[in-house]
Parts: sequence; C-alpha cells; structure tokens
Amino acid sequence: MTRIAYLGPAGTFTEAAARRFDLPDPDFVPVDSPAAALDAVRAGEAEFAVVAIENSVDGAVTSTSDALVEAGVQILAETELDIAFAIMSRRGFSLDDASSLTTHPVAYQQVKGWISEHLPGVEFVSASSNAAAARMVADGEADVAAAPERAAELFDLEIHARGVADMDSARTRFVLVGPVRVPPARTGNDRTSIVFQTPNEPGTLVAILQEFAYRGVDMSRIESRPTRQEPNTYNFFVDLVGHVDDAPVAEAMRGVYLRASWVRFLGSWPKASGALAPVDQTRIADAEAWVRAAREGQTQTEGER
Amino acid sequence: MTRIAYLGPAGTFTEAAARRFDLPDPDFVPVDSPAAALDAVRAGEAEFAVVAIENSVDGAVTSTSDALVEAGVQILAETELDIAFAIMSRRGFSLDDASSLTTHPVAYQQVKGWISEHLPGVEFVSASSNAAAARMVADGEADVAAAPERAAELFDLEIHARGVADMDSARTRFVLVGPVRVPPARTGNDRTSIVFQTPNEPGTLVAILQEFAYRGVDMSRIESRPTRQEPNTYNFFVDLVGHVDDAPVAEAMRGVYLRASWVRFLGSWPKASGALAPVDQTRIADAEAWVRAAREGQTQTEGER
Repeated sequence: MTRIAYLGPAGTFTEAAARRFDLPDPDFVPVDSPAAALDAVRAGEAEFAVVAIENSVDGAVTSTSDALVEAGVQILAETELDIAFAIMSRRGFSLDDASSLTTHPVAYQQVKGWISEHLPGVEFVSASSNAAAARMVADGEADVAAAPERAAELFDLEIHARGVADMDSARTRFVLVGPVRVPPARTGNDRTSIVFQTPNEPGTLVAILQEFAYRGVDMSRIESRPTRQEPNTYNFFVDLVGHVDDAPVAEAMRGVYLRASWVRFLGSWPKASGALAPVDQTRIADAEAWVRAAREGQTQTEGER
Repeated sequence: MTRIAYLGPAGTFTEAAARRFDLPDPDFVPVDSPAAALDAVRAGEAEFAVVAIENSVDGAVTSTSDALVEAGVQILAETELDIAFAIMSRRGFSLDDASSLTTHPVAYQQVKGWISEHLPGVEFVSASSNAAAARMVADGEADVAAAPERAAELFDLEIHARGVADMDSARTRFVLVGPVRVPPARTGNDRTSIVFQTPNEPGTLVAILQEFAYRGVDMSRIESRPTRQEPNTYNFFVDLVGHVDDAPVAEAMRGVYLRASWVRFLGSWPKASGALAPVDQTRIADAEAWVRAAREGQTQTEGER
C-alpha cells in the first residue's frame, strides 16, 4: 500500500489531484490541513502528501507555503486541475429558500460573482474544505454548498448547477510531496523551488534575485510570508524555470546560498504544462571547460561569446 | 460629518484603528469587506476608508491588496495595533461545554495555539469579522468567540480570557484611504506604495526592483497577486522606505514607469513607527545641480563621490 495524505474528507479537489498521480496500490488518507499532510510524511505515517500550492485566481496557498518551510519534505511532481464547482443542496430543497452557502474560503473567491448574481443575499459560511462544505449541507448546517461534483455523490446531494466558476481559466496546481531524496530526473521542462531568508540589509533581496536574472534563469513565482519568528522577517518562496541539474540553475542556487541568511531546497520536478524554452546550458558548460583547461595547462584558454 | 467606511460591524479591530486617526466629527460606516470600504470612497459615499493591510503573523491582507488595484483611491496615513483577543461566551456558559469557536480566519491563525491548548477539539467556525463572531455567539450560532474586548461589551458577553495571542508581537497595520490628492507632506520617516505589472519577459521584475536597489531605496514589502485577467500575470505590490518627494524615490519611480507594463501610485504617507535612516538625497541633489550647471554654462561641471 502507498499511503497518500491529502486535505480531506473524500470528495475534495485535492483527492482528485491525488488520484491523478497514479501511484501504485494507493491508500488515500484524509487529513485536515496541508500542514497535517506534510507532517504525516515527516513522521513516516504516509509515503506521500498531495497539497494545493497555487491557484490562478487567488494566488499562492499560503498555508501550504508555510508548511513547506520546515525540513524533511521535498516536492516531486505536480498536476493542474481546472477548478469549477457544482452548486448542491439536500434533495428537494429549492434554491429560492437558500439563506446560507458554504464552501472553502479560497473556493468562495472563485464563485462569489455567480453567487451574488444567482443567490443574492445568502450568508457565506466558511468550511474547512469543499467536501466538508457538502457534508455540512448534508448535516443541515448550511443550505447550499459549492463543491466538486463528486461530493454530491458522496453525500447524496442534489446538484442545481455545474461548472460554476467566475473565471473560465481558474486552475489550481497541486504538488506531490515525499521525503527528501535525489530529485526526479531532468526532463528539459522542469520547475525548481527554493525558500530563503535575507540578511537584514537593504538590497539583499534584489541581489539574490539578480543571481537568477543574469544567468537567464526565469522566475515563475515569488511570494513573501512572515517567518512568525521575528517581526519584519520574511520567508521568500521562489519558483525557477529549470532543474537543479541545469547548470545555470545550480550556479544561481550557489549564488543564493552565498547571499541568503538561510535557504532550503524544496525540489526540482517536471512541469505539468507549458513547453518552455529549455535552459541555455552552453555558455556555462563553455565557462567550466575554459576554467578546467586553464587548470590543466591546455592551450584552449580563450573565451568569447 | 466625516464619513469613514470600515470593515464592520462595530467592535472590530478595524473600528478601533479607524478611531485612532482622530478625524473631525467622525461618522463610522460599517461595510462588509475591504473592497466595499474602498468602493464607498470611489463612489463618494464616504470621505475615507480604513482597511487592514498587513499582519505580522499572517502577512499581507490579500483582499485589501486586490481592492487597491482599481483607480480612484490613495493611502494617506497608517496606524498599527497590537492584536490580542478576548475569549468570550454568553453569560453563565462554561468553557468546558464549548464545542465550537468562531472568529475571523486571520484571527484564528493567531489564536489556534491557545485554542488547541485550552479548548482542544472545538470546531472552528469562520466569521466574516471578529465582531461578527461575537454576534454569532450572542445569537447562539457558536459557543465561544475570539474577538476584541470591546465586542463583549457591545454584545453583552462574558470574557473568560484576555490578551490571547500565540505570538506576543502580533500586530496589524491599518491604512487610511481617501480619494486621489496631493500626498501628505514628507516627514523624513515615510512609506511609499506602488503596484505594477511586468512585461512578459524574463528578468523584468528584477530589473524593476534594481531601480530601487541601486538608488539605495529600501523595499519594506513585496507581494505578488494574480491579476485575475490573464493566467500567469501578476500585480506586484511594493512598499518603499521614503516619500515621492524624496529624490531617490522619485527617480526610482520614473525607472519603474519606463520598465513596467502598467504601474499605479498608491500613496506616500508617514510611517506609524520605526525611526529609519532618512533617505540620502545629497547625491541626487548634487547630480541635478551638476546637470543644471552644465546647461547654464557654469564652471562647476565636475562631480566626484
């Protein structure tokens, strides 16, 4: 059995994402937060965790970012899901009678346009997950839930509308997380993630980002989060285009190590989508060959662009 | 009457912050979100809005950031509140019988250590504000609320614990927002905020941040948020140390204008705390004098550091 911890209960988008990774003989273990999913891996109670990391409408999933800071886990793979909701109630309930609607707060951001148009004036009640929202409706704690279609099956609810999403392009990226290991092999279309803190001096953040820029390593995401240890100190999360086995990424990471006050490698893994220009490795390979040639007394000691 | 829109109902920390600004003859108008508060200013329904912008534990208040992107408002002042909660219930209720606790989700992040120690196993119920949480307890929708002390008075609740906060240093920064105008005068301890989007090319974010770094303008905050217009496009929010009337800040802003695909000035205003090294204006004033001297045919045409 492969134990996979995910934000439960059954019926969440995270469960759908977890099933996408096609792990052998899976045993899906619902837990109640992204932090609990990662802690299950850290404690050896699960081989893997699946957590949402970024949403195209609401940005980074901050609870996941915060939970990744602590040692012992590494991102191994990702998948992206189109996010659209079904509007559901107990059987026989008319939407005209609805006075409350429940869903996860991030989900609420993605349907509130539809809600204000179709269910004006309903009170929003926060749920710990979309599937928990469906369960709350089944239990009579709210009239209507916005949740994945599968949750209606699981909790025997009636669906009133499908494919509800204020933005057509709403997508959430989920990552597969496991214990620290040799990263999955470079594919040429990879993502690398690191988190770092900067010394308390002006300009250090820019100096670190410059390590990527002048090696042509593209940043696909930057996010700052309070460390919660000292006021005005931040963890900076940066996603890079490329793999730690790409020489420019490795060189940039060395540069970050030298400038940051603290840094952790969060993983290199294949991207779920988007054929990107592969990282240009020629110049750095040339530079290494040139330094090696100089050390070895070879005659090939010139370099030109 | 000075109409001041804030995240209501009465009894929220935002109301306490709004009272701190000491506006003449205030009429506090509760609304149900930071966006609604800013829209009230845009529509001329309120002279000012007071909104939370950053919390030392949970980071930027993303709903406020998103609401600031649209034109028509400007940040004019700020204040910081220590955030600590009172734990309250209906009169005569014993905490031993508590099965549910309600508060705003951001507040919950700041008390959940205390909750898991003192009220293990209670269910968290999300509230739209801390004061709404107190009202929910008064209405019997939850057993216990974590809310500002004043909310207990307003809703006639009994306080069981005061000063509850997992981190001693938890503070929230609130800003006073009004229609666009000439910014408040430079004090020498100011903050400037801008939001921009970058052209879709690698390295442009770093190039923009470099505009600050090489002029010695310190960034006190950076945050990225999806634009919600196109996938993978972001609004970057940057807070700078200094005033738009400080020459290095003005120069850096000109540089950002030239590099960004879109930029909006969100305001320059006095900082609430922290005596910072004033922005060094000498070099840029010298540089301007030198260029003017050259134009005017003066003999003072040399420059040295």
